[in-house]
Amino acid sequence: MEYRIEKDTMGEVRVPVYALWGAQTERSRNNFRIGQPASIPIEIIHAFGVLKKAAAHANHSLGVLSEEKKDLISKVCDEIISGQHDEQFPLVIWQTGSGTQSNMNVNEVIANRSLVLSGGKPGQDKPVVLPNDDVNKSQSSNDTFPTAMHIAAYKLLAENTIPVIEQLQQTIHKKSTEFDKIIKIGRTHLMDATPLTLGQEFSGYAAQLTYGLTALKNSLKHLSELALGGTAVGTGLNAPEGYAVLVAEKIAEFTELPFVTAKNKFEALAAHDAIVETHAALKQIAVSLYKIGNDIRLLASGPRSGISELILPANEPGSSIMPGKVNPTQIEALTMVCAQVIGNDVTVSFAGSQGQYELNVFKPVMIANLLESARLIGDACRSFEVNCVRGIEANTKRINELLNNSLMLVTALNTHVGYYKAAEIANAAHKNGTTLKEEAVRLGYLTAEEYDQWVKPENMV
Amino acid sequence: MEYRIEKDTMGEVRVPVYALWGAQTERSRNNFRIGQPASIPIEIIHAFGVLKKAAAHANHSLGVLSEEKKDLISKVCDEIISGQHDEQFPLVIWQTGSGTQSNMNVNEVIANRSLVLSGGKPGQDKPVVLPNDDVNKSQSSNDTFPTAMHIAAYKLLAENTIPVIEQLQQTIHKKSTEFDKIIKIGRTHLMDATPLTLGQEFSGYAAQLTYGLTALKNSLKHLSELALGGTAVGTGLNAPEGYAVLVAEKIAEFTELPFVTAKNKFEALAAHDAIVETHAALKQIAVSLYKIGNDIRLLASGPRSGISELILPANEPGSSIMPGKVNPTQIEALTMVCAQVIGNDVTVSFAGSQGQYELNVFKPVMIANLLESARLIGDACRSFEVNCVRGIEANTKRINELLNNSLMLVTALNTHVGYYKAAEIANAAHKNGTTLKEEAVRLGYLTAEEYDQWVKPENMV
Amino acid sequence: MEYRIEKDTMGEVRVPVYALWGAQTERSRNNFRIGQPASIPIEIIHAFGVLKKAAAHANHSLGVLSEEKKDLISKVCDEIISGQHDEQFPLVIWQTGSGTQSNMNVNEVIANRSLVLSGGKPGQDKPVVLPNDDVNKSQSSNDTFPTAMHIAAYKLLAENTIPVIEQLQQTIHKKSTEFDKIIKIGRTHLMDATPLTLGQEFSGYAAQLTYGLTALKNSLKHLSELALGGTAVGTGLNAPEGYAVLVAEKIAEFTELPFVTAKNKFEALAAHDAIVETHAALKQIAVSLYKIGNDIRLLASGPRSGISELILPANEPGSSIMPGKVNPTQIEALTMVCAQVIGNDVTVSFAGSQGQYELNVFKPVMIANLLESARLIGDACRSFEVNCVRGIEANTKRINELLNNSLMLVTALNTHVGYYKAAEIANAAHKNGTTLKEEAVRLGYLTAEEYDQWVKPENMV
Amino acid sequence: MEYRIEKDTMGEVRVPVYALWGAQTERSRNNFRIGQPASIPIEIIHAFGVLKKAAAHANHSLGVLSEEKKDLISKVCDEIISGQHDEQFPLVIWQTGSGTQSNMNVNEVIANRSLVLSGGKPGQDKPVVLPNDDVNKSQSSNDTFPTAMHIAAYKLLAENTIPVIEQLQQTIHKKSTEFDKIIKIGRTHLMDATPLTLGQEFSGYAAQLTYGLTALKNSLKHLSELALGGTAVGTGLNAPEGYAVLVAEKIAEFTELPFVTAKNKFEALAAHDAIVETHAALKQIAVSLYKIGNDIRLLASGPRSGISELILPANEPGSSIMPGKVNPTQIEALTMVCAQVIGNDVTVSFAGSQGQYELNVFKPVMIANLLESARLIGDACRSFEVNCVRGIEANTKRINELLNNSLMLVTALNTHVGYYKAAEIANAAHKNGTTLKEEAVRLGYLTAEEYDQWVKPENMV
Repeated sequence: MEYRIEKDTMGEVRVPVYALWGAQTERSRNNFRIGQPASIPIEIIHAFGVLKKAAAHANHSLGVLSEEKKDLISKVCDEIISGQHDEQFPLVIWQTGSGTQSNMNVNEVIANRSLVLSGGKPGQDKPVVLPNDDVNKSQSSNDTFPTAMHIAAYKLLAENTIPVIEQLQQTIHKKSTEFDKIIKIGRTHLMDATPLTLGQEFSGYAAQLTYGLTALKNSLKHLSELALGGTAVGTGLNAPEGYAVLVAEKIAEFTELPFVTAKNKFEALAAHDAIVETHAALKQIAVSLYKIGNDIRLLASGPRSGISELILPANEPGSSIMPGKVNPTQIEALTMVCAQVIGNDVTVSFAGSQGQYELNVFKPVMIANLLESARLIGDACRSFEVNCVRGIEANTKRINELLNNSLMLVTALNTHVGYYKAAEIANAAHKNGTTLKEEAVRLGYLTAEEYDQWVKPENMV
Repeated sequence: MEYRIEKDTMGEVRVPVYALWGAQTERSRNNFRIGQPASIPIEIIHAFGVLKKAAAHANHSLGVLSEEKKDLISKVCDEIISGQHDEQFPLVIWQTGSGTQSNMNVNEVIANRSLVLSGGKPGQDKPVVLPNDDVNKSQSSNDTFPTAMHIAAYKLLAENTIPVIEQLQQTIHKKSTEFDKIIKIGRTHLMDATPLTLGQEFSGYAAQLTYGLTALKNSLKHLSELALGGTAVGTGLNAPEGYAVLVAEKIAEFTELPFVTAKNKFEALAAHDAIVETHAALKQIAVSLYKIGNDIRLLASGPRSGISELILPANEPGSSIMPGKVNPTQIEALTMVCAQVIGNDVTVSFAGSQGQYELNVFKPVMIANLLESARLIGDACRSFEVNCVRGIEANTKRINELLNNSLMLVTALNTHVGYYKAAEIANAAHKNGTTLKEEAVRLGYLTAEEYDQWVKPENMV
Repeated sequence: MEYRIEKDTMGEVRVPVYALWGAQTERSRNNFRIGQPASIPIEIIHAFGVLKKAAAHANHSLGVLSEEKKDLISKVCDEIISGQHDEQFPLVIWQTGSGTQSNMNVNEVIANRSLVLSGGKPGQDKPVVLPNDDVNKSQSSNDTFPTAMHIAAYKLLAENTIPVIEQLQQTIHKKSTEFDKIIKIGRTHLMDATPLTLGQEFSGYAAQLTYGLTALKNSLKHLSELALGGTAVGTGLNAPEGYAVLVAEKIAEFTELPFVTAKNKFEALAAHDAIVETHAALKQIAVSLYKIGNDIRLLASGPRSGISELILPANEPGSSIMPGKVNPTQIEALTMVCAQVIGNDVTVSFAGSQGQYELNVFKPVMIANLLESARLIGDACRSFEVNCVRGIEANTKRINELLNNSLMLVTALNTHVGYYKAAEIANAAHKNGTTLKEEAVRLGYLTAEEYDQWVKPENMV
Repeated sequence: MEYRIEKDTMGEVRVPVYALWGAQTERSRNNFRIGQPASIPIEIIHAFGVLKKAAAHANHSLGVLSEEKKDLISKVCDEIISGQHDEQFPLVIWQTGSGTQSNMNVNEVIANRSLVLSGGKPGQDKPVVLPNDDVNKSQSSNDTFPTAMHIAAYKLLAENTIPVIEQLQQTIHKKSTEFDKIIKIGRTHLMDATPLTLGQEFSGYAAQLTYGLTALKNSLKHLSELALGGTAVGTGLNAPEGYAVLVAEKIAEFTELPFVTAKNKFEALAAHDAIVETHAALKQIAVSLYKIGNDIRLLASGPRSGISELILPANEPGSSIMPGKVNPTQIEALTMVCAQVIGNDVTVSFAGSQGQYELNVFKPVMIANLLESARLIGDACRSFEVNCVRGIEANTKRINELLNNSLMLVTALNTHVGYYKAAEIANAAHKNGTTLKEEAVRLGYLTAEEYDQWVKPENMV
């Protein structure tokens, strides 16, 4: 491979000629060979594109950056946002905890790409914009990286995760309506209980997601506050008057999302409770999805030796050895995602608690986990919705069979004969393998007519 | 010990004569000898007092319970709420996952105590109110226990945890104002950074708690919704028309808290995402408190070989072997509480995900963890506020010494000489053990006068 | 209440006259009102009894403590170990993170009780042994508290938790043998699969516990190493030559457990990876128990609308509203315990990672969680074994019915007609609601005789 | 893109012509668009290469597979193991929870590649080996996937993770020896304590890793047991007599690792406690590494306003805004990895507890987390060792300064003047800002000569 020489305040570094990055990126590449290369989420890079452009605009408006430089930087940022330079960001999550090296990666790529756009050659011709003094003007890694975290997270949630969960919620709600006349046996403690409709059962799932969405949306407010303008420790040193508010406005304008400057920049650098808060909402949704998915696969279990009240779409052969087997695979993918998100929440909480003094240096791991959880929940909900929920059918024959056979219809007798006698009837039927009606009459607590009148599943839901 | 005979639908049981409880409580006592006796939180019992009273009132209003029984039940409930019968609730967390046995414990105590109040003798005279048919009328464990969970949690949070955290937030905010003129060295990555005021540092802590309180209060809405009226599986079987709304109104009236009936009773029985949601907010606060506490103990470390910028109140001798040692013990208690709450959150999430069909049967463990976390955070914040934060003093002599010695004041030169030359100055001073000013002048990048004019900590905050 | 005056290096403190504790305990009582009083596990206090006695013996042997004082201290320690003074230890988990205050509580109680035994009066007469200089001789909280942690944990595990799990493993193994001829349908992905025996299914549960016991026993080695002799920071300052080895021998002698002195005292004070390691083994067992319990309740679900292959003992009425309902309550208690232990593991890991410099100051929370988990798992396994597993019966009628109805017996045909044709047969039977045999013959892939010869469940297990 | 037609028991599917995979892989690709493509760990694919080869050999030895097919399959497996076909495995973690689709992916690639090697064309010419009937002979996904999990995990741990941790342990141990004469102030509760040597401090870190390695190696035994031979539900249906033992021997031979057949196949399919156990050991190591890393960065904090007892290698510029700043970046990467592993442990435990009946269907998420944790810990330890620990230097000037200034040297006086008077001396020196010696003499408790003789840091370590 061919190399060129780049340098930083520590000296010279050999960089591949194809690279737009510079010395600090290359040092990081060499010093942090941990996990998969380029693991820093690409959403963070694109968010950096937005914020570097916004910073250039704000700096220009406030008179500390020339129009020429502003235009050059903006042009490159637009390229970065569009994904044109994705391969120029080779760094990993497991770098410095402030994300400084990814910030510098962006600064260096913008500087070198600006040079190329101006007809120059990186490492050879004089830079037209400088990575630290121009691209990073009025900024520090300490305020840019958390700003990129909030932009990336908010954008992913607002544009993907939330709409997808809403779609799933609606499809479940639709199923709930579709199933609202199907009376079935209820189950508590896994044991037969009083009846409800299948629609009611599904309405509970829909309600869970509605609460989860509320919790997730509640968390967006904190996430909408941006650290930018705090610079190194939150004081805003080296940033011009008015910069913080203006740059947040620019970001809001460019993203069409309601970003504002953070009320307290010290908190915004030293703590990432907004990430903790948002992830907790995703974790709550994972908890809900687990219940929903697990219920549906239990209800669909069988086909002959399980519950079999639901029929799921058969998307693929289920077994390499058992012919004809079909499994609830979408739910398995979904519940595995839930397990991951529940674990990620611990990583995020642990990392969130470990800030020291003016900086939390677990930024990359926190945002990587939040973005992963948001992405996985979004993708898994979409897959579940499309490949499973839409196609769920009720096995009404089986549902009726189980309903009519149940002993818990006896509960309807409580208000007529009292809990004690009702229990006696149910116990006798269970012991003798008979029906409730037979035992009720045999015990002399009511007549067959009374039974038929009082025990009507349709009046019990 | 003397015993009397009580019975339930399964037969006879010997119960201690002093006990107001009956057969089902006694069975549970014998069958679940797990952990400390009587571990079911007492707040749950008191909440049951409220809800049984509310149910009696609603049942009476709706014509299904006599005034006499309503009055008797209410009277006993008031005794229970006042703590008069606390020793009559011997059951443990680790019982049936629906909390049925604690519900029955309450039903039995109310029935037997009603008999006593009416001049009768438990196990001997004819009951005046029946545990299942009267006290439990229009109810099931499946809707009463989650209702008690919400009442107990909301009450503890609203009346204790939240006010205490608010008090801590205010004291920190006050300290922040008190310290707002004290300029000190900042630290990022644990390394010296640009200055800020001690007040700014504390303002970050106050901001964290403000966000946490917002998150916690956001979660109360879900918690204000009550399952009562859903009975066995959410359909409201055996409850009269209008009961759910009315009983929630009664509970709101008796507690003076804004409880309403849950929009979806199926969700309210089968899932406890409200508990998951609220606990996540407590966990977020634990994450914040950990950062705050850890920072303060780092800043107070010493007295001679640490940072020593803060002086904490000396509350007790710190060491059994090292004479004169004083330790940040309040913070140690606080951070241990945080560790517990972060773990409890996993318990709550795990348990919350494991509902099956119409019921989540991890109710006792979920509420026990939520109440413990709420109580511990409340108590620890109060202790920390009273015994530590109020008395924190700034060690201004030490703060000034460290500030003036720092190399990171060089950052002020970026906008004058650029990042590269500023780095050269700092590196030279670090290498030579000299001051920034000496090196700046020696390297010829600025004059001593310029240095004094440009590098003023008071302009950097 | 009446008080007397006690004092320590910080001055005077009023102590209740009934108390044997002194000034430092009282300060802690007042300064740490967090959670339930006296929450520090009593096992820790009893372990302190052992170690204070051992220290007195070792100090005497090495010539730094008089025989008289040794005897007095030993006598009081024996009282403490026997539980005679349990109410003299009122402190909480949430105190100083080194446990210094509980160490001093023990020192003070021993000193005052020694005075009483010698005919003196605490706070009035001259002490006969001094808390710091005599009882705590050659010790520090920093090495005594972790020693008490290891003693308490090892003892509880060896004498209770492990034997109980072994008992449960044996009972399950016995059930496995009892059920070894009962052929039943297997289930994978919750869906019908090829058959196995009920005994084989239970053998898997037994195997899980065997592995868990191995893991738990593996962890005991680290736990057998004692910090005592490290004193304040691990160097053994102020302890006589040979003390560390000797005191561990004494502890081994007094407890009849294989304790030895820790190889590295710096690790033994500053880290508690032994606690992390042991708790992880308990967590593994919780994971196993969860699977076992959940399987059994699924298999016992019904009685009419579930799987119903197992019949569990009916220990109590299951519902306050549904008469005749019986629930798998032991399993619910067990699985709630599992949820708690899985969360406690996070608390222990978090706390274990947070040692700083020469000391981990999360000692009380770590040991409290380990002891709770060990106790809960022990108690829950015992309860589950006695009240559930022993009485499990196979519902052979139902088992046969489900077995013979299953489509997955088709797998036996793979080796005769290939996977593709076997799948065709199974799919046809599923679609047409027919039997495998009917479809196999109809499709012309084999004769009825061949079917009967090849598809024998008893040959498939 | 060009396509060809492949089919399975559900019908036809269009597959890209470049692909060696078949219908089932393609279905999975389309049905599970969750997260990054091809996320199933490549180590699993390579492990499948080993086991498919071993199965072919065992099947041939036992007379159920022709030599020709065995040779063909083995040849392709060798190609897979060598990484030649990595791009032919496009599936994701978030697929069916049994990993069936990845098993079929491997079966299909082997079948099609065998055809190509035999001069045929996939989707056109008649297969020479069939994916289900030949490549998967005597196997099921249910036993192959867990076997691949154990192979992949054991191999990665034995060949990479463990040696790297050992290397780090040795380097730390070497540092401990190098620093064994450097006496420094100890710190407990973050506060000054009695002295120890820097070598002793590092010896504690080395000891932690030694314990962690023991725990990790203890877990390998369970991991060495292979499920293969259990087929669909653990009974070994459709596998020839002797197959399980033989195939494990082949795997041991091909990998040169001590694999054996699992004692209980039901456990091996339905539970993955071996994964839970091994991950717990990695989590313990993460806990240790966190303590080690955090201590080192605290000790290196400064350079002027922190502890500054250690000097870490400066690998890159630390700040984009603060010139000359150098940060403990290797430790930040390491501690972020620890946070990830601690969270992953929860994912693994959660997933491990959720097996149902004869199968745990969280296999892919469990192994993905285990392999990630093993890889990250290995990589991070290597990076930390090479780029940080090797180059750590002691700042002896600073160490001496802090040592001599400390008040906790007073502890040496306990055995001479008692704890109370020693405390008085320390408190006076702290209050007056004087030295211990000055106050000791002033208070008249000892002479200057006695002080010099008794208080010697070199005698205190």
